[in-house]
Amino acid sequence: MELFTVADIPEIEPGDDLAAIIADRADLRADDVVCVASTVVSKAEGRIADLADFPAGPRAREIADRLAAITGEEKDPRFAQAVLEESVDLLMEAPFLLTETRFGHIGVNAGIDRSNVPDGDLLLLPKRPSESAARIADGLPTDSVVITDTCGRPFRYGQRGVAIGWDGLPASRDWRGQRDRDGREMGVTVQNVIDELAAAANLVAGEGAGGTPAVVARDFEFGDLPGSDNHFREIEGDYVRQALRGWSYQAGGEA
Amino acid sequence: MELFTVADIPEIEPGDDLAAIIADRADLRADDVVCVASTVVSKAEGRIADLADFPAGPRAREIADRLAAITGEEKDPRFAQAVLEESVDLLMEAPFLLTETRFGHIGVNAGIDRSNVPDGDLLLLPKRPSESAARIADGLPTDSVVITDTCGRPFRYGQRGVAIGWDGLPASRDWRGQRDRDGREMGVTVQNVIDELAAAANLVAGEGAGGTPAVVARDFEFGDLPGSDNHFREIEGDYVRQALRGWSYQAGGEA
Ligand SMILES: Nc1nc2c(ncn2[C@@H]2O[C@H](COP(=O)(O)OP(=O)(O)O)[C@@H](O)[C@H]2O)c(=O)[nH]1
Ligand SMILES: Nc1nc2c(ncn2[C@@H]2O[C@H](COP(=O)(O)OP(=O)(O)O)[C@@H](O)[C@H]2O)c(=O)[nH]1
Ligand SMILES: [Mn+2]
Ligand SMILES: [Mn+2]
Ligand SMILES: [Mn+2]
Ligand SMILES: [Mn+2]
Repeated sequence: MELFTVADIPEIEPGDDLAAIIADRADLRADDVVCVASTVVSKAEGRIADLADFPAGPRAREIADRLAAITGEEKDPRFAQAVLEESVDLLMEAPFLLTETRFGHIGVNAGIDRSNVPDGDLLLLPKRPSESAARIADGLPTDSVVITDTCGRPFRYGQRGVAIGWDGLPASRDWRGQRDRDGREMGVTVQNVIDELAAAANLVAGEGAGGTPAVVARDFEFGDLPGSDNHFREIEGDYVRQALRGWSYQAGGEA
Repeated sequence: MELFTVADIPEIEPGDDLAAIIADRADLRADDVVCVASTVVSKAEGRIADLADFPAGPRAREIADRLAAITGEEKDPRFAQAVLEESVDLLMEAPFLLTETRFGHIGVNAGIDRSNVPDGDLLLLPKRPSESAARIADGLPTDSVVITDTCGRPFRYGQRGVAIGWDGLPASRDWRGQRDRDGREMGVTVQNVIDELAAAANLVAGEGAGGTPAVVARDFEFGDLPGSDNHFREIEGDYVRQALRGWSYQAGGEA
């Protein structure tokens, strides 16, 4: 498998045709997987916003006040308002906001970015990234598109690339029922390949001013295995998520 | 960046010289990163065990009884004993065991595998995978080795490759202080590259009987950025881990 960046992508503006911009700059093959950073998808879709677009309500003010008290820094309640409006569930409200976005992804601040954003204050995630992926795939000589973001996670230090939307390939490949090297049936192994593709793409795209928001994964072989589009966990079975419901942050110590 | 598997690796046995086996089968370059599945590291290090090696004590019997009651399946208390012996902290005891291994990794059943294991019943993770990585790197024409495993995670469906040990490259690259495309200083971005490399390697290694436990990542550029060896989170700041302390599973509903 090979991973390479698409060179010379300009600064993306609302209304830009990302598929055309990518297709013009890469000699794509039908079985390539194109990984596109959510940042540029959001820019193309006009998901740039100002704090002024989010006049804060009581809940956002309560959250911002509490975060200000915890961190000792001033917190703009309009940012909390933006996060709430971009979310359908609040998993943690302190010492940072962890939410479920409208499309099921769990991330800090609903994935709203303040890096690599010109003009506006805020860059919201694409509204429905799998629909974005399908639209981009439509304009490319390949069917397979993964929309990526970078985020942190429990237990493990640092951030890594993840998939937040996809089209043209299954999210996971299912090894259940296959035989292992010892002839035993494998019980539990569902491999989330779009997250692995997003992580791989992030290695070559980087986080900085590099200007490489599109990465091509060439010669990835899904293999002759069943696939599924399960990607975000159901709450039933997500015990960590359930545990967070009974927890709340207490400054200076553990709950 | 290119990712390719090392072909024709035999079934690994205790005492095998993994570095020699890999070096013989791949034309490695000095800046390659070699990703090795923990399975074969464990086999080479003789980390194969039988359930009989783990006579169950009271705690293991309590855990197994509770799991049996929850799942309606018989549970061998010796397996719980093995997990406890391989662990330094127990984060969840039901409906499955989630623990911290001696080297700081958090995983289900302390990462003990029953797939792709001949003879013995159990394959324990390498004792100190970063030391394994250093030993393997010693025998290779490259310095950079990542030991991988496959595991699940909160919030997101399916499993993906992660790094559990590494040597010769930093775990993370640090973008803090760099300027983004808009000239703004990036605040929080530490990119865990070894986890991303492990995920990428897993895409080509697969989970089944493929027999490709070693993957070469060629032309990965770390770049001129500071690195760090932080990889597993400290508990302070790991709010999910703190939340699990106050939680316990209740059958048929949420805690
Ligand atoms: N060419 C180009 N690159 C961009 C643009 N916006 C962001 N990038 C690059 O895209 C990559 C990913 O950006 P990042 O902000 O980390 O996106 P995220 O991971 O989706 O949040 C980096 O290499 C950025 O320099 C853009 O408008 N044009
Ligand atoms: N050649 C060879 N391949 C192995 C051996 N053991 C496991 N594998 C392969 O290594 C890959 C990873 O195995 P897996 O059990 O998923 O390892 P884990 O992810 O580290 O738990 C699969 O392609 C297996 O077929 C072995 O002893 N020899
Ligand atoms: Mn982002
Ligand atoms: Mn990023
Ligand atoms: Mn394993
Ligand atoms: Mn595996």
